[in-house]
This record gives sequence, C-alpha cells and structure tokens, in this order.
Amino acid sequence: MKTIPVVLMGCGGVGRQLLHHIVSSRSLHAKLGVHLRVVGVCDSKSSIVVSDVLSMELDDKFLLELCQLKSNGSSLLTLSTTSGVEYQVLTNSDSTTKLIDIAALLGKSMGLALVDCSASSETIGVMKQVVDLGCCVVMANKKPLTSTMEDYDKLVSHPRRIRHESTVGAGLPVIASLNRILSSGDSVHRIVGSLSGTLGYVMSEVGDGKPLSQVVKAAKNLGYTEPDPRDDLSGMDVARKALILARLLGRRINLDSIKIESLYPEVMGSNVMSVEDFLDDGLLLLDKDIQERVNKASLNGNVLRYVCVIEGSRCEVGIQELPKDSPLGRLRGSDNVLEIYSGCYSEQPLVIQGAGAGNDTTAAGVLADILDIQDLFPEK
Amino acid sequence: MKTIPVVLMGCGGVGRQLLHHIVSSRSLHAKLGVHLRVVGVCDSKSSIVVSDVLSMELDDKFLLELCQLKSNGSSLLTLSTTSGVEYQVLTNSDSTTKLIDIAALLGKSMGLALVDCSASSETIGVMKQVVDLGCCVVMANKKPLTSTMEDYDKLVSHPRRIRHESTVGAGLPVIASLNRILSSGDSVHRIVGSLSGTLGYVMSEVGDGKPLSQVVKAAKNLGYTEPDPRDDLSGMDVARKALILARLLGRRINLDSIKIESLYPEVMGSNVMSVEDFLDDGLLLLDKDIQERVNKASLNGNVLRYVCVIEGSRCEVGIQELPKDSPLGRLRGSDNVLEIYSGCYSEQPLVIQGAGAGNDTTAAGVLADILDIQDLFPEK
Repeated sequence: MKTIPVVLMGCGGVGRQLLHHIVSSRSLHAKLGVHLRVVGVCDSKSSIVVSDVLSMELDDKFLLELCQLKSNGSSLLTLSTTSGVEYQVLTNSDSTTKLIDIAALLGKSMGLALVDCSASSETIGVMKQVVDLGCCVVMANKKPLTSTMEDYDKLVSHPRRIRHESTVGAGLPVIASLNRILSSGDSVHRIVGSLSGTLGYVMSEVGDGKPLSQVVKAAKNLGYTEPDPRDDLSGMDVARKALILARLLGRRINLDSIKIESLYPEVMGSNVMSVEDFLDDGLLLLDKDIQERVNKASLNGNVLRYVCVIEGSRCEVGIQELPKDSPLGRLRGSDNVLEIYSGCYSEQPLVIQGAGAGNDTTAAGVLADILDIQDLFPEK
Repeated sequence: MKTIPVVLMGCGGVGRQLLHHIVSSRSLHAKLGVHLRVVGVCDSKSSIVVSDVLSMELDDKFLLELCQLKSNGSSLLTLSTTSGVEYQVLTNSDSTTKLIDIAALLGKSMGLALVDCSASSETIGVMKQVVDLGCCVVMANKKPLTSTMEDYDKLVSHPRRIRHESTVGAGLPVIASLNRILSSGDSVHRIVGSLSGTLGYVMSEVGDGKPLSQVVKAAKNLGYTEPDPRDDLSGMDVARKALILARLLGRRINLDSIKIESLYPEVMGSNVMSVEDFLDDGLLLLDKDIQERVNKASLNGNVLRYVCVIEGSRCEVGIQELPKDSPLGRLRGSDNVLEIYSGCYSEQPLVIQGAGAGNDTTAAGVLADILDIQDLFPEK
C-alpha cells in the first residue's frame, strides 16, 4: 500500500467536491493500492493541520463535517468536530510557514501533494517553494500558471511533479493528451478551442437569432455565468486557459501578449457601470452589432464562436467565423471542444469534447491528477 | 538524467516507426531528463541484444541501419552493421531465455521497458514473466490483452507497470482518458465507438449510396484494408478492441462472450473462398442487403455505422443505426471516434476523435506510454 499525504488549499465548490470524491473513492483506491492521507485543509483565512503530519490524518468523518461547515459559508475557525482527530488551527499569517515546514519534512521522506483548488493568485509563492522542497503540486487554479514567465519557469522546473488538468476544460483530458503528444516528439502546430461553457452557450444561442442581452440574462439565471457576467464576457478566463496551453507548447509569452476580444466595450466596465445597469441598459446597446455579425457569417455558411487560437506566434481569444460543419461550428450548449493539429493529426485534428465546467468534473480531474503522480511516492 | 532500458519486440511498420521516433526525439527527451537506451530488438525469428545490457546500447546509427534492413524485408540474422556496437544475435529458441535473463537482471536494479509492437499471440508468455520480475510492459499488440482472463489478470497484476494506449484507436488518448476517469471514482456506464478506420470508411461510403463491393475494392486499393479485406470485415479486430475496453471497465469476459457481426457470411470465409473469388464474386452478393439496410435507416433519419457498444453486461460489435446528427453519425473517412458516458459525462458524452490508425500515430502512442512510466525508473 502506498500513501500520498495531501494538503488542500481552497474549500470552495471544487475543493469540497474533491474531499467528497476522496472519501467516496476509498475502496477503489485501496484496490489500486493507494491511500490519500489528507493532513491539512486551508481556506482563504486559516488552515487546519493534523498534529503529526508523519502519521495522522483528517479522517473521513472530519472531512465531511468540514465540507458541511464550508458549504454553510462558515470559516474553518468555527469548526467544532465530533471526530477524534487531533489538529491545529492556524490563521493565515502562520499558515504559510506551517505549510513550508510540512513540505520540508515530507518532501524528502514520504512526499506531499499540495492541491490548489483556490482561485487565488496568492498561492504561487508557497507552491514554488513546495516544489523546490521535493513535493508535488496539483492545480485547478489557473492563476499560478498565468503569472510571469519567471514564476512559471520556477513552478514547472520539475515537470513530473506538477499536474494541472483541471485548469483547462475542467476534467476533460486536454493537458494529459497534449503532454502525450508532445512527449512522443510530435509537434503541435495549431490549437483551436471553445474553452468557456458560458461563452459557448451564449454564442450558440445568439446564432439562433436570440438577442445577446436576452441570452446573457438567461445564462445568468441558469447559473451559467459568474455573479457579474462581465467576468465571462471579458474573455479573460479563456485567455488564461489559452496562455496555459501556449506555454505548454513552449511559447514564452505572458497574459498581456494575448489578443483578447471582450464582448463589451470599456465604457461598460465594472469600474464604470454597476452589474444591474449593465444587464438592464448596457447589454441592449450590444444586441444590434452582434446580430449583424451573426447574419454576415450566416451568409458565408458560417457561425460565430468564441474561441482561442494558438498557431505559430499567434495566440488570441475572441469571436471567429467558423464553418457550420466543423466540430466547433456544431458545438451546442455548454460543452467545451478542443481541436489539436499536429504531425500525426495534420488533416483531421484530434478532437476532445465534453463538459468543460462544473465542480464535479473539475474535482474528478484533480483527483485523477493526484492518482497519476502516485509513482513519485515511495512504497510504505 | 534518467535512463530507461528498452527491448523492442516486433520490427514491422509500427516497431520501425517507433525506433525512428526514438532517434529523432533524442534532444527533446534530453530536455525532459530522460534517455531511452535500446538494449535489444527482436523480430519473429531472432533477437539482437547488446553484449552488456547494464551499460551498452544499440546506438542510433545501428537502429537506423536495422530499420533499413527490416524495411527491405530481410531478417535480423543478415544484419551487418558499420556501427561499432557489440551485440549478440540469438535465434528464436534462445531469445526467450535471454529476455527473461535480462528482465531478471534489470528488473530489480535499473528497470526495463519491454515493448510489444508485434501482432503475435506468442509474446504473452514472456511478458507475464517480465512483469513478474519487476519490469514494465508497453503494448501496441492487442493479442496478449485479449487472451484468457487468467493471462489478463497476470499481465495487469501490477497496473502501473503496464501501458497499452496504442491497442485501441492507435495514438488517440483513449486508454489514458478512461484510466483517468476510472481513477477519479467516476463510473463509466456506456461506451460507443467506431474503432476501425477501415470499417468507418466502408460504412460512410456505403451510406453515400455506393455498392459495398465497389467500396471494399476501393478501400483495398487505397491500402486501407488488410491484404485479405475479410480480416477487417469480420469485425474481429474491433471485437479485440472492445474486449480491451470492457476489461478495463472491470468486465470479466472473453473474446467469445462478445457478439460479433461479420459483414460477410461463413460460406464466404477464407477457408472456403479465395481472396480473389471473394472480391470478384462474393462481395457482389452482399451489395443488395446492405443497401436495403442503408435505405431503411435513412427513412428514420439515421445512418449505419460499424460500432462497438459496451453497456452493462452488453458488449457487442456490429452495424448500428445511429442518428445522422451524432458524433458517430457525422463521422467521415477513416477517423475513429469514441463516446464515453459516465457520472461526469452523463447527458453529453466525453468524445475523443481523430486518426485511429497508421504506423506514425500508433508508434507515437507507444512512445508516449514509455515516457509516461519514467517515474518507475530510478535516477541514475
């Protein structure tokens, strides 16, 4: 039996779902000869760590109580458990020091998987150090990988110790497949993808002739968008995913090198206009223009899709006119799709398609990543 | 730098392409900190092994000369190289003993990747022993995984030490993706796929109204089929792939539990009719029936596809009527496509599509597998 000590950062929807997946997969993992020993959990304000990280764990009862607490919106600080686990609660200022101590202790002996399911840009410091100390890092968080090239180089300096499938297309096997293609010596010359379920939904509905304003409001009501839909419509989230893919292909670029088309103008930005005003008034002003573009594309037998394109030195995200009869053109609803063109897939691309969002599949991608690094941990 | 000792079995198109890929990926692999040290190569009649498997290798010049020799159809026994490599040539009867010796020596120290690119059912014995001796096995060969359950259990008894991406869909990330889904605790309840480029081509052409007899002859002329097209039309190759997927999902079944629809009747089998007679006379007798099925499907807005279906206890391969407007229904040419339905992909499947045949992509899949087991080999 092999044990993987785990520390989880981030107790939002994905982090909690990951804990649920870990608990419910115990017997399966036992069959695979692996035990995930959760030794610490951190939210944005504090951390809970077992008293002895070499031998103890936050047991399943504890983890489920913790999930319950966090889903009620409470802080870890308020946890009072009926489980018999011995643990320490640390506030933020002490958490980082403690994490580094744990990594230094475990990195050279039984190993550690530090899992980042937060959406914070502040985890990168601790993650770089943890990798340096011989530990593994698994990320659903896109921010650390889309920081400066210097940060990126440091973070991926031991490529086998880092996994981040769920940063692009949630649990879809996008990163794993790209890594396989690259390690076989095949060269990827073009990637085109629809990597936002929200924008995929918006563009296919707009293509059906519905006004943008109506579609965005419907998407918000369906829970498809962020609380402020402009966070989706800005294209920034897609740009981060594009940057992660481009860097994986070896491009040494930053977020500001990516051409990003926002679906709303700067004068409707969140520093100028409230969400309500944007939804009630701003959006209406955008309907005509987008409908004209849809109609123009339609005359060419094409549809509009919000895609990322990585090809040569080009890396951009925005609206593209695409053939109706292509995997991207046929895309409906909130599925993601990625087309990869390489030496082996030169005429017809390798296509990966499916649900690219949701806590469930995102957490499943993280868990698969953790299992995938098991060979880096010693047999007990 | 990490070294992976490699022995290759099979010098057909895939094996030779693998050697070419290994040679041309040297600098890339050096960047990844990995060196593939080829210590032996076997064809169906003999083996070539370096004099000292602990330290020597068949160098790149040697490997390319060997590829040249084999592509001319010569036996390894006739190799006369200008490379300075010290090696032994063994005939078949001594090869197995030698391979076991090597595995016993390397399995407990620096490890060994035994790569099966043959199409033989006779490699299974040595592979089972090699796994038992602590070595890794990478397969493009479907036969060992589609033998008895007893053989299968033995072969996969150390699941981390065995990789076989290229047994299904060539280099398409089918097995890797399924393994990720399964290790995350997600349960796969349905797989539908078109896993034969040849039958994919045949069915889409027949769907366009062309007679089966004409389509099969055209496919043979294009090099899409085996020398005897009945080897494709029997469905046996697809059945082997279906069995590999079904066993991966935990089904304990054999090849003879799979319902296989052959596209020709037994009276046209290869023990009854010559290839020429089948192509010139037999096939013509099949045209009418298949065209009637095509027309009937068309009335329902459907198309015919030769697919594998794995669902519950059901595992079958044959012609199915499928909606025109589904990933399988839209399939054209010789691409493969696989739809996976699971907890995470319940309404819309996870779809993987692309070239599922060809020496180039098959060998790329094998090479990616070898790189994927690097963590099982010690640092030098």
